[in-house]
Amino acid sequence: MKSFLSINDVENLPALVKDALEIKKNPHVYKVLGRNRSMCLIFLNPSLRTRLSSQKAAFNLGLQTAVLDVGSQGWQLEFADGVKMDSDKAEHIKEAAAVIGSYFDVVAIRAFAKLENRDEDYNEQVMESFKKYCPAPIINMESGTGHPLQALADLITINEHKTVDKPKVVLTWAPHPKALPQAVANSFSRWIQAAEFDLTITHPKGYELVEEAAGNADVEYNQEKAFEGADFIYAKNWSSYAHYGQILSNDPDWMVTENKMKLTNNARFMHCLPVRRNVVVEDAVIDSENSLVLPQATNRIYSMQTILKQILEKL
Amino acid sequence: MKSFLSINDVENLPALVKDALEIKKNPHVYKVLGRNRSMCLIFLNPSLRTRLSSQKAAFNLGLQTAVLDVGSQGWQLEFADGVKMDSDKAEHIKEAAAVIGSYFDVVAIRAFAKLENRDEDYNEQVMESFKKYCPAPIINMESGTGHPLQALADLITINEHKTVDKPKVVLTWAPHPKALPQAVANSFSRWIQAAEFDLTITHPKGYELVEEAAGNADVEYNQEKAFEGADFIYAKNWSSYAHYGQILSNDPDWMVTENKMKLTNNARFMHCLPVRRNVVVEDAVIDSENSLVLPQATNRIYSMQTILKQILEKL
Amino acid sequence: MKSFLSINDVENLPALVKDALEIKKNPHVYKVLGRNRSMCLIFLNPSLRTRLSSQKAAFNLGLQTAVLDVGSQGWQLEFADGVKMDSDKAEHIKEAAAVIGSYFDVVAIRAFAKLENRDEDYNEQVMESFKKYCPAPIINMESGTGHPLQALADLITINEHKTVDKPKVVLTWAPHPKALPQAVANSFSRWIQAAEFDLTITHPKGYELVEEAAGNADVEYNQEKAFEGADFIYAKNWSSYAHYGQILSNDPDWMVTENKMKLTNNARFMHCLPVRRNVVVEDAVIDSENSLVLPQATNRIYSMQTILKQILEKL
Repeated sequence: MKSFLSINDVENLPALVKDALEIKKNPHVYKVLGRNRSMCLIFLNPSLRTRLSSQKAAFNLGLQTAVLDVGSQGWQLEFADGVKMDSDKAEHIKEAAAVIGSYFDVVAIRAFAKLENRDEDYNEQVMESFKKYCPAPIINMESGTGHPLQALADLITINEHKTVDKPKVVLTWAPHPKALPQAVANSFSRWIQAAEFDLTITHPKGYELVEEAAGNADVEYNQEKAFEGADFIYAKNWSSYAHYGQILSNDPDWMVTENKMKLTNNARFMHCLPVRRNVVVEDAVIDSENSLVLPQATNRIYSMQTILKQILEKL
Repeated sequence: MKSFLSINDVENLPALVKDALEIKKNPHVYKVLGRNRSMCLIFLNPSLRTRLSSQKAAFNLGLQTAVLDVGSQGWQLEFADGVKMDSDKAEHIKEAAAVIGSYFDVVAIRAFAKLENRDEDYNEQVMESFKKYCPAPIINMESGTGHPLQALADLITINEHKTVDKPKVVLTWAPHPKALPQAVANSFSRWIQAAEFDLTITHPKGYELVEEAAGNADVEYNQEKAFEGADFIYAKNWSSYAHYGQILSNDPDWMVTENKMKLTNNARFMHCLPVRRNVVVEDAVIDSENSLVLPQATNRIYSMQTILKQILEKL
Repeated sequence: MKSFLSINDVENLPALVKDALEIKKNPHVYKVLGRNRSMCLIFLNPSLRTRLSSQKAAFNLGLQTAVLDVGSQGWQLEFADGVKMDSDKAEHIKEAAAVIGSYFDVVAIRAFAKLENRDEDYNEQVMESFKKYCPAPIINMESGTGHPLQALADLITINEHKTVDKPKVVLTWAPHPKALPQAVANSFSRWIQAAEFDLTITHPKGYELVEEAAGNADVEYNQEKAFEGADFIYAKNWSSYAHYGQILSNDPDWMVTENKMKLTNNARFMHCLPVRRNVVVEDAVIDSENSLVLPQATNRIYSMQTILKQILEKL
């Protein structure tokens, strides 16, 4: 693997998941890959799981890691071409990405959608700029349109817990007090379909995902109907793509509850975390035996480690 | 040792101090203990000595370390049970502690008393929540009620410098412009009494420590009288426990001065740092040959390293 | 080398540059030097290149590194002697420097000029305080008056790209929206002259460097005239030394342009980064084949690594 920006960079998805499951069994056997190599983690936004699981993955691989919180520790970055830089942005991405990429063997970046301008977010300005100017392989730790490390961790988790070959997976929108990016939902939808599972997406009208992410998934506006027979319920809030970045609904009836879970085929409950308890999901569901939120989070280590392994192998 | 929240987790105090003194002589001999293991340091508050000495202790043990500044780098945490999470707190401690504890072999936490609500601080909400939800051993890097790593460092220092078996140790309150937690004073009092030294605590009325910390120490409201015959003077400001979090006095007459030190048995001066010079203690005292503030700070490495060693040995 | 505060700490400059060029060829051969040793990087100001290249240099040397962002992570520091510390500064540099220096084998510090008080900046209060109170060797990662790690990286770069023994080097002031320190210009001027290259400094009147830095360089107020026959153009903004910290000019005619570069001897363009594009320098120049800004930035690794190697060898 050269870089990891989205599922498009994955050549063989079943092989990738298989590799992850193997790595999880013996996480320290690839330490030679990290020898005399180093990675930079660049955060333009807060992070807990991604920050820590990425460092843990690097520890497992013997890979040295430097962490940069742009904004609090570095300089504000300019992304526009040809601009006269007399604002508060002290450094152009051309230099920043080129320099960082000359220091490290791998560069991982988190840059959330700002939800102000759909084109800017969906053009993946930050990630594409790094791809263009950074000579080292880059890894997407959540970008304007996707969060593929999360989707890979989710896929590993489903593979560990599915009891049928092609489980029915339901991605359900849930309410949230803040406007959130579509990144997690987009990637989950793309990866689940790429894995050829049966995917139903349920949400209030107006929350349709971008076409490329929605793909051929069934869209069902009736949440209870969507839950029927589900093997996995994946809850996530996102803001509207059509009315970009807007909160169209805060309807508490969309919260995932114990009662709704009864409609499913004893489904496992999933969420990428952090989660708003009793807003997105009832305590009774997330605290139940069927909750997979912790295994998902743990698999973030192996998701990152697998991507790093495949990138380091190609250096 | 399973976890290290307070002196209650110490089985054999003399053996612990002896272990620390041995480790200090040969700090790199336990590197095998850290092999393929890692620690997370979680800071909810600022830190200099704790942050750096903990990393140094980990270096000495070959233990990989990730540092998380919650707030600036992570998410605001919710600690209350059953709450509808529609505030600015994006993640519940249940998930945060469980996830971090699934990534690392040891988790160390700093969470100062907020001095707003005595029950909240003295119930040790943060530390107890981590203990409850974090599957990995946890270490207290200063909590609502105690700072046991500091107390262990102080005890190591006293053992290195005492000239009699049972020295007279005086813990004296001193003025300070800000309201400070009782944590350092509480732990010092408990550990010095556990070590069976002769402890006198002196402070203005209203600054009595919580009963569990005060124990059987002599309380003397006349500072000069308390200093008489002392072998060690430990200065520290704290806010009132009875009138919780309040500053009852800023009386500069409680500053530790050269003249007062003359009342002692050529006592050594101690403070945990950071210290307000010429507010808590005169320059002439902290800069004198009898000052132990730097040896105390250096012993923070061996205090943390000893606790880590004992925890790693039990993994 | 004991410490590295300025060029005054360099015994043999040609040997230092030669060492750097050797290290660059085989960056991992000195890993034994870092064994069981550690460094602390202390930042009082933002940093990208310095932060990351220093960590990379340490990785190459097998040296463990802890990073401290004073202010956001630690305590505000007091530098004045004898003061009653009842302000917002919680810790005196005497303790902070002594403690950090007792934890680590090397301590590197970044403390920009504040541009408020010339004496304070040019007395190097922060760096001199560390030198005085820190028992470990210290490294200047940019101080009130100089940025010697940058100057060494620049010198390495010039040595790699010069085609004549004594190239004509031009340091040109350039406009900038913010008042910047003189540190980079000061050090560049001193190091280029120490290397016995032919140095011309060009700037509007009022921007003369401090005498010690200006040395015997030619000063030419006509930028175009200065550019004639130049082999290297080094652009940098700085605020006035005479009218301390003031912006005396924002004249866009001082920007380095393609047309002006035509006056040179096909000169290479240099800048320490971060750079304001189309304010300090035109896109056409920084993006040209003659631009050395990225090689300069890469050489920051070897500049730091060479200084660290020479310090570690003397421990």
